[in-house]
Amino acid sequence: MAESSSPALELAPSDDTVAAFTAKLDAARTAARGLSSATTNQKDSALGEIAAGLRGSMERIVAANHLDLANGAKNGLSAGLLDRLTLNPARIESLAEATLDVVRLVDPVGETVRGRSLPNGIRIDEVRVPFGVVGTIYEARPNVTIDIAALAIKSGNAVVLRGGSAAENTNAVLVEILQSALEAAGLDPASAQTVDEFGREGARMLMRARGYVDVLIPRGSAALINTVVSESTVPVIETGAGVVHIFLDESADPHWAVEIVHNSKVQRPSVCNALETLLVHEAAAASLLPAVLARLVASGVTIHGDEATRAIFADALPATTLDWETEYMSLDLAVRVVSGLDEAMDHIRTYSTHHTESIITNDLGNAERFLREVDSAAVMVNSSTRFTDGGEFGFGAEVGISTQKLHARGPMGLPELTSTKWLVRGSGQVRA
Amino acid sequence: MAESSSPALELAPSDDTVAAFTAKLDAARTAARGLSSATTNQKDSALGEIAAGLRGSMERIVAANHLDLANGAKNGLSAGLLDRLTLNPARIESLAEATLDVVRLVDPVGETVRGRSLPNGIRIDEVRVPFGVVGTIYEARPNVTIDIAALAIKSGNAVVLRGGSAAENTNAVLVEILQSALEAAGLDPASAQTVDEFGREGARMLMRARGYVDVLIPRGSAALINTVVSESTVPVIETGAGVVHIFLDESADPHWAVEIVHNSKVQRPSVCNALETLLVHEAAAASLLPAVLARLVASGVTIHGDEATRAIFADALPATTLDWETEYMSLDLAVRVVSGLDEAMDHIRTYSTHHTESIITNDLGNAERFLREVDSAAVMVNSSTRFTDGGEFGFGAEVGISTQKLHARGPMGLPELTSTKWLVRGSGQVRA
Repeated sequence: MAESSSPALELAPSDDTVAAFTAKLDAARTAARGLSSATTNQKDSALGEIAAGLRGSMERIVAANHLDLANGAKNGLSAGLLDRLTLNPARIESLAEATLDVVRLVDPVGETVRGRSLPNGIRIDEVRVPFGVVGTIYEARPNVTIDIAALAIKSGNAVVLRGGSAAENTNAVLVEILQSALEAAGLDPASAQTVDEFGREGARMLMRARGYVDVLIPRGSAALINTVVSESTVPVIETGAGVVHIFLDESADPHWAVEIVHNSKVQRPSVCNALETLLVHEAAAASLLPAVLARLVASGVTIHGDEATRAIFADALPATTLDWETEYMSLDLAVRVVSGLDEAMDHIRTYSTHHTESIITNDLGNAERFLREVDSAAVMVNSSTRFTDGGEFGFGAEVGISTQKLHARGPMGLPELTSTKWLVRGSGQVRA
Repeated sequence: MAESSSPALELAPSDDTVAAFTAKLDAARTAARGLSSATTNQKDSALGEIAAGLRGSMERIVAANHLDLANGAKNGLSAGLLDRLTLNPARIESLAEATLDVVRLVDPVGETVRGRSLPNGIRIDEVRVPFGVVGTIYEARPNVTIDIAALAIKSGNAVVLRGGSAAENTNAVLVEILQSALEAAGLDPASAQTVDEFGREGARMLMRARGYVDVLIPRGSAALINTVVSESTVPVIETGAGVVHIFLDESADPHWAVEIVHNSKVQRPSVCNALETLLVHEAAAASLLPAVLARLVASGVTIHGDEATRAIFADALPATTLDWETEYMSLDLAVRVVSGLDEAMDHIRTYSTHHTESIITNDLGNAERFLREVDSAAVMVNSSTRFTDGGEFGFGAEVGISTQKLHARGPMGLPELTSTKWLVRGSGQVRA
């Protein structure tokens, strides 16, 4: 049986809610069809209008944001969450600039991925096409509203946004700006929509909107991502948590060990490619650890070590299994002494989230084994883990870092927001 | 929090069942690690042993198959299902030959997809790696057991099989042959496993085995695929049903119209790329339809037409909405007269399963609009729909035809059974 034009949603909410939600998604699907044929010039024009809209609406955005911040303070949001929720003129200007950066990216739509002529004269070409409708569920970070909409529009996708309710007032203004910009560029304003007004039901319905939404990208905490992964019937791209490891091999260059570990942990501890657990070869622990840890402690890092680590570095707090499992996202580091490469890879296999792992070594055989056997999105030799990043990889922008194995793995650029289709051009051929 | 080495399964069955199932999947994960580093020679040697094992075990396979066929007849299986369940010496020999064909395919593992040197001297390379553990849920077609295992092994993946219970005895013998062949080639026999002994619970547990199984590929009816898609927390590759359309445009070449429609419908009606609905431009219906339908009827096709079709071809049965939605997989064809390209594309948008659609036209503008606007895995001009096929596309073998947009779309070859990872080689670089 074919999928009908209005796929059934498996929903608990009232009929009216379902009807209103379905109408929004129907409008998004229609808009997606138009956007899929829009030229790069039209899409870039919409991005320019978004940047202009942000710059021209600073006061409105800040006023709405103040409302969200006041509610947040009343509801006891932490200082960190309130900071993520804040949009001030400087941050709005950064968002406008980031939107204009997307203009400079190559439009992936229409790229021929591969193609050939078949022996019978038929020509086949696999070309990039937009997914259609991209859904995204995220937390109270209103910058994501603009970031993801800009990337979706450039790649020819309509976007349906479900932000955290703590940012509802800010997001409402931002979505108005998106829609006005689309309209000003001659594109369907329904290409960018929010389902925030449906509250938690909105997120639930979005996860079940198979046939309306082509792919769902959760952005936020591991808990949010796990919920989306396990409840969604729409295909999900998992952009994930990073319990990131470095292994200092016996032959590690002492200077590289100090500098790479410090950079991986300290340069920006709150992001997913920051180091969380350091593993050290037992034969090198006594010679390497004192300098490596001293440099970290001087930058304010708290060390959580196993017994062997604490025998060398007495100031370390005792580490438990919980430390091996934790993505601190703070100036904390778990440290463990291992018997060698095999035990290091066992530890990584047990606790890694398959994001990024790096070995510091001068042993060719160990480097090659690590590259081959560690099953993560990025596997490194003698490099800071902070390089797993779309910008650093030369993608220009980053949709997220995929820690799953399907469709995309590692930093995702614009091409990862597309699918493909096969164009088949014949002249009457039939199959024998 | 990190995924631990033994992810929790969300299960209803008894603790003993879960433990036995988990032990199997743990063994598959361990085997997958070995298989991911196996050389092409080793994997090809296993394929050779499988072919030899099939040829050397004809009597055992046929005896087990007779048991299944007798049970099936007792349980009232249809003649068609009993035929699909049957393995006789000729079919077993075909399976052995198909396995040897896989030896000749290029091993996708290790292929560099893209790579570059970053400005700071770091070298990054994206290379193909196996998924790890591929799960498959299919119906009582024992040939799938060998087909999918051969493709999985060649692409370096362990495979966990859940076949239809009606083929349980046959599959048990086939899995023994697979495991003996793996062992003879020096590979871990746990690389190919069945969970048939867990019955329906086995399928349910497999769909929930996130963290153990990297991707799940359902093979079979639309109902089976829909169940897997909606119940699985493991990422699914949907290989799908085909409600395939041809649109005869006003300018269609009459000879091409007759021959392409006939070939698309009649050459092999039981497969997913066979034609199911013919749409005809109203201005060409009177001139084209009589010859097109006469040729079909001469080959035994039953026509289900709308009113306009029946006005031209009185022998047509009346078509209802159900006909537009149905994948007949038989010598039946739905026919509808439309006002032009737009109505044809509306019909396709409403009823297509996004597999294959073809336009027969001599109008360049209409051809380009059809190619651009129809959202299917394969969109064709003046070609039989039967060409949407891995073999025809030059892939050598076919895992299935993906009708989803994530990861793979259209015919899937061996590379579509792999993921990638980024290898990052530095010399002490840190991020500024």
